[in-house]
Amino acid sequence: MKKLTVGILGPGTVGGGAYQILVNNHDLIQKRTGVSIEVVKLLTRRPRSEYPADLLTDDPDEILNDPNVDVVIETMGGIQPATSFMIQAMKKGKHVVTANKAAVAASYEELVMTASENGVKFLFEASVGGGIPVLTSIQNPLSGNNFTEVMGILNGTTNYILTKMTEDGADYENVLKDAQARGFAEADPTADVEGIDAANKLSILIALLFGKYIAPSDIPTKGISHVTGQDIAEAADENCIIKLIAHAVLKDGKISCSVAPEKVPISHPLAGVSNEFNAVYITGDMVGEVMLYGKGAGALPTGSAIVGDIIDIAKNL
Amino acid sequence: MKKLTVGILGPGTVGGGAYQILVNNHDLIQKRTGVSIEVVKLLTRRPRSEYPADLLTDDPDEILNDPNVDVVIETMGGIQPATSFMIQAMKKGKHVVTANKAAVAASYEELVMTASENGVKFLFEASVGGGIPVLTSIQNPLSGNNFTEVMGILNGTTNYILTKMTEDGADYENVLKDAQARGFAEADPTADVEGIDAANKLSILIALLFGKYIAPSDIPTKGISHVTGQDIAEAADENCIIKLIAHAVLKDGKISCSVAPEKVPISHPLAGVSNEFNAVYITGDMVGEVMLYGKGAGALPTGSAIVGDIIDIAKNL
Repeated sequence: MKKLTVGILGPGTVGGGAYQILVNNHDLIQKRTGVSIEVVKLLTRRPRSEYPADLLTDDPDEILNDPNVDVVIETMGGIQPATSFMIQAMKKGKHVVTANKAAVAASYEELVMTASENGVKFLFEASVGGGIPVLTSIQNPLSGNNFTEVMGILNGTTNYILTKMTEDGADYENVLKDAQARGFAEADPTADVEGIDAANKLSILIALLFGKYIAPSDIPTKGISHVTGQDIAEAADENCIIKLIAHAVLKDGKISCSVAPEKVPISHPLAGVSNEFNAVYITGDMVGEVMLYGKGAGALPTGSAIVGDIIDIAKNL
Repeated sequence: MKKLTVGILGPGTVGGGAYQILVNNHDLIQKRTGVSIEVVKLLTRRPRSEYPADLLTDDPDEILNDPNVDVVIETMGGIQPATSFMIQAMKKGKHVVTANKAAVAASYEELVMTASENGVKFLFEASVGGGIPVLTSIQNPLSGNNFTEVMGILNGTTNYILTKMTEDGADYENVLKDAQARGFAEADPTADVEGIDAANKLSILIALLFGKYIAPSDIPTKGISHVTGQDIAEAADENCIIKLIAHAVLKDGKISCSVAPEKVPISHPLAGVSNEFNAVYITGDMVGEVMLYGKGAGALPTGSAIVGDIIDIAKNL
């Protein structure tokens, strides 16, 4: 039986989800891949009683420099030290799997090139759309297409808030407070509500769809904090619904892109994407329109995408 | 530059779509894969002026026995001789890509085993959901999940007919005639309207999701020819819409499955899938609900999936 060993940098919510899937579904995955995948080390700054104590370390080198670790899962979040750790791991010949959209979007070209130079895989399906298999679809089954457009609902917090504002006629501030109380929004919601998280994800989508890197800071970005009940009512009068849309179009060789609240006709497939769900609507010259829909966040959906990437590595051992 | 040569058995609508994509998007695909993919031979019984004359042959052995053909695309349709040709090609060390759901569903185990025994790939993304990347998603990014349920709108003809019956209040016979006139239904619509086509696709989905083969003839199958305007009106009174659903559930280790008209609540993501579009709604224990939506038929959407499979082969050369 082939074996693949995994170290996790930051076994918090998302990394913990991946851990749980690798443990709970170990036998299923072994049956499907012919490989036994084993988590051998977890980097955490504080004690975590939910994991076996002998797996824990607070020294990154115990994962990054351990020749017995084949794959590193990076789920620390934040740009640094996550990016340095990923690069260090790849230079040591380890495959890297991450859910960290901010880090991938900030250093896309360096990360991809480091993987290529070191003959390892750098996979980040979980960084866009959580559990939705969007990046794999773009890079494999859809990759015979010239892509012309992408529209994404890529942030669950803002979609939840806009859904509640639309359904209940409530105003932004009250819905935000409710979302925070229910755990759908963070205490500091800036990165979500101002569209920064969606811009990071759009940067990654643009790189894969159009083969061109546009830094998140170069994407015109407007959040939902100024959307009013009146805006929503006016959109409804036009048979539209307001959604925060990450949008990119390739026309005459030029990419135009933005993250902004847009009026989406209620007959459009994206209009039915409610609450914390995400969806990506892609147009290719051959396939036409494709939409991929699912949970864009959460421990297990995001963990599912991470484990999918690890399975990809296992199948290619 | 690496090269991959392709022979097409049956360059009709779907095979012709794949040919067109491989020719029109040749340079794009070469850039993405590092491989030049070239169609070198087309098996057709009758002259076809749309193709270069020197590529045409009416002798299957000129593809199946030609050591210079690396990949065989099978788009002849029908169970035989398509199945024999695919098996013969794999025994000669050729990868096989097909869109032929009837053939895959009829001989799933033999085809998969033949590929495995001969160390070649047998890929059939195009056989379910046309251009929708559903089989790849199940087998790779979602494959860390125990799947528990699938609901699919897998036949464009019946979905078009039901959509028109719902929107226009028209009756089945009139809509069918209109669909035939517009090319959305075949002259003999039996395989579509009686659910046989959907049952073939469900058989394939069940094999990949649950690891168990159920022959299409063992799937309880009911088509839409007996759906009346009254049925649709009664469903509407219950806030539901009638869709032909290919449905399979795994519970307590037992698979129950059917193809039948079902009342789908209008709030369900499948309810918004209209006209000739298809969608597959999958539930996994970790990822939750995922829906994949797009064009389930047509030369270019289906061709897109075939080319995606060929790209998969090219990337693994």
